[in-house]
Amino acid sequence: KTYRIAVIPGDGIGKEVVPAAIEVLNKVAQLDGSFEFEWTEFPWGCDYYLETGKMMPDNGIGILKGYDQIFLGAVGMPDLVPDHISLWGLLIKIRREMKQSINVRPAKLLQGLHSPLRNPNGFDFVVVRENSEGEYAESGGRIHSGQDEVAIQNAIFTRKGTERAMRYAFEMAKTRRRHVTSATKSNGITYSMPFWDEVFAQIGKDYEDIEQVSNHIDALAAFLVMKPENFDVIVASNLFGDILTDLGGAIMGSIGIAPAANLNIERQYPSMFEPVHGSAPDIAGQGIANPLGQIWTGKMMLDFLGYHELGTKVLNAIEATLAEGIKTGDLGGKATLRDVTDAVLRHLQ
Amino acid sequence: KTYRIAVIPGDGIGKEVVPAAIEVLNKVAQLDGSFEFEWTEFPWGCDYYLETGKMMPDNGIGILKGYDQIFLGAVGMPDLVPDHISLWGLLIKIRREMKQSINVRPAKLLQGLHSPLRNPNGFDFVVVRENSEGEYAESGGRIHSGQDEVAIQNAIFTRKGTERAMRYAFEMAKTRRRHVTSATKSNGITYSMPFWDEVFAQIGKDYEDIEQVSNHIDALAAFLVMKPENFDVIVASNLFGDILTDLGGAIMGSIGIAPAANLNIERQYPSMFEPVHGSAPDIAGQGIANPLGQIWTGKMMLDFLGYHELGTKVLNAIEATLAEGIKTGDLGGKATLRDVTDAVLRHLQ
Ligand SMILES: CC(C)[C@H](C(=O)O)[C@@H](O)C(=O)O
Ligand SMILES: CC(C)[C@H](C(=O)O)[C@@H](O)C(=O)O
Repeated sequence: KTYRIAVIPGDGIGKEVVPAAIEVLNKVAQLDGSFEFEWTEFPWGCDYYLETGKMMPDNGIGILKGYDQIFLGAVGMPDLVPDHISLWGLLIKIRREMKQSINVRPAKLLQGLHSPLRNPNGFDFVVVRENSEGEYAESGGRIHSGQDEVAIQNAIFTRKGTERAMRYAFEMAKTRRRHVTSATKSNGITYSMPFWDEVFAQIGKDYEDIEQVSNHIDALAAFLVMKPENFDVIVASNLFGDILTDLGGAIMGSIGIAPAANLNIERQYPSMFEPVHGSAPDIAGQGIANPLGQIWTGKMMLDFLGYHELGTKVLNAIEATLAEGIKTGDLGGKATLRDVTDAVLRHLQ
Repeated sequence: KTYRIAVIPGDGIGKEVVPAAIEVLNKVAQLDGSFEFEWTEFPWGCDYYLETGKMMPDNGIGILKGYDQIFLGAVGMPDLVPDHISLWGLLIKIRREMKQSINVRPAKLLQGLHSPLRNPNGFDFVVVRENSEGEYAESGGRIHSGQDEVAIQNAIFTRKGTERAMRYAFEMAKTRRRHVTSATKSNGITYSMPFWDEVFAQIGKDYEDIEQVSNHIDALAAFLVMKPENFDVIVASNLFGDILTDLGGAIMGSIGIAPAANLNIERQYPSMFEPVHGSAPDIAGQGIANPLGQIWTGKMMLDFLGYHELGTKVLNAIEATLAEGIKTGDLGGKATLRDVTDAVLRHLQ
C-alpha cells in the first residue's frame, strides 16, 4: 500500500525539520514492510507569497485534495509577511476548507525533558479541540468611529460541530483512561457555554462508563499547573483548546516538541499534521532546530492511518533519544538536528 | 476621617475570613490614627436566597450605593443554589450595576509559599482585567432545535471600555516596572482582537516611556508558567483576564491567597474588594480556612483609599507570617484561622 502525502515544509525551520521527520517515517515504513509513503513537496508559504503575492496558488486546495494526507512544517515570517496573511492564507484556510474540524494535541511528560513544574507527576493527557467554529468564527464587525466605536465578535457554536468534538473525545477516552473533562465557562459566558454544557451532558449519556467532569476554563488552566496528572481527555472549544494546548506544551518543558493533528474524521478530505511550534526564523538554516515536534507529529499521522503500534514505536524512540541526553539547544542540550534525527533512527531499529 | 464600608461576608468560609480581615484593617487604622472604618454587615448570599428567593433585596444596589466601598467574602453554594443564580444575582450584578469596570489582581511570589514551579524566579505582576464587557456581554441567542441548533455569543468591545482598561494599566505601570503586556488573539479572532490591538497601539502612544508588548493569549498562558518574572502589568479582556489571574493564583502556590479589586475608577459608585477564592463549603465553619486572601484583599482596599504605605505594611505582615511557617492546611501547615490572624496582627505592630 502506498500513501500519497502532500508535504508543505513552509517557512523557517519547517524546511529543516520536515525532511528529518520524513526520514524517520520512511524508516518506519521500511521496517514494517507492508506500506510506503510517496511524498510530494509544495513550496508554499511566505517565500512563495513574497514572489507571487499568494500563500499558495488559487487552486491549492484543489491540488491538496488529491492527496491522502498533508504533512506541514511551520508557517510564518512575521517580519516580512503579516500574520493574518500567512495564517489565514494557508494554515487556517486549509483547516477550514478541508473541514479538519477536530484538532488533537497530546501532552505527556517524557523522560529526559525538564518540566518547569516541580512535581509534574507523569501527566499524560490529550486535548480534543473543536477546530472549525466557535470563537474563531469569521463573523462580526464594527460600528461608529472614534470614541463611539464598538467592535463585535460572534462566537458561533453549532450542535453538529459541538457534538462531533465531544463524541470524538469520548471515543478516544475509551482507548485511554476513560475520563473526559469538558472545558466550559458557563458561569460567565451565558449563551454559548450553557449550550456547550447541555451538549456535553447529552452526548455523555451515550458514554455512561466514561467519567465526565466539567471545569471552568480559568480553574482548568490552573489545574494543568497544579495537578496535570488528573486529566486524560479534555474536550474544548476552538479558543479554549488553543490556550490549553499551549499550556500543555509549556508544562512538558518545551513547545518545540508538541505535536498536533488537524483531522477530517469523516475522511472525505485529507487531514493535516503540523507541530505546535512556529517557524523560528531566528535559528533557521543552522541545522540546530529541534526535529522532535515534527517527528512526533509524524507519529500522529501513523496513528490516524491505523498504525498505532508503529506510532508507539516512534514515540518510544523519541523518548529514548531524550533520555540519552541527545537534545538540541532549546532543551538545554548541544546536539544538532542531525544528531537527534540519527538517534531516533537508531532507536527505531 | 471615617470610611463607611458595606460588608457582605457571603457564604461558607466568607463568614469566617471576613471578620479576620476586618480585625486586621481595624488594627491598621488604629496604628495609623488618622482614620477609622465603620463596618455595616449585610447577610446576603445563598442562605438569604434560600429564605427569600433572592440573593439580595430588590433595593440592594441602592443600599450599597450609600457606602464608600464594599468588602465581600465569597459567594456560592453550588449544591443548594445554581451558580448562575448566586453569581448573576449578587457578584456580577454588583460589578455591572456599580460600573466596576476594572478588575485588578496581583500575583506575587511570597516567601514561605510553595509554588508548583521549579524556578518561580520571584515573579511579581498585576493583571488589569476589563470587567464590564467583552466576552461576558450578555448578548446572544439560539436558533433551531435538535440537530440544527446553533448558539451565538456576542463579545462586545467598546472603545471607551477598552481604552479605560488600557490607560489604567499604563498608569499603573508608571508606579511599577514600566512594562505593559497586552493579551490578544488577533491571529485567530478577527474582529474584536484586531480592534483591541489598535486601541492598545493608540493609547500606547501616550506612554512612550513605558515598554509595550503584545502576546497572544495561548503563548501568554505558557509564558506565565515558563518565565513569569518577565511580566509587570498585563492588560486583558474580561475572559483572558479571568484565565490569566487563575493561572497567577496557581503559580503563587495557592488560589486561597490571591486578592482582587473590582474598581469603579471614576469613584462615582463604591468599588468592591473580594478575594479570588470561593466559599469552600467543605471546610466552612471549622476555623481552619485561610484568611490571607481576604486580608490581602483588605490591603487592596487600603491602596485604593490612598494608603499605599499601610497597604505595603499589611502585605509585609502576610509575608512574615508565611515565612514563619504559620500556615493553614491549604498551604501545607497546621495553623488555624485564629493563629494566622494573630500572627498578622503581631507583625503589624
Ligand atoms: C464566578 C465567575 C463568573 C467569575 C468570573 O469569571 O468573573 C470568577 O471566575 C472570577 O474571576 O471572579
Ligand atoms: C496561529 C493561530 C491562529 C493558531 C490557532 O490559534 O489556532 C495557533 O495558535 C495554533 O494553535 O495552531
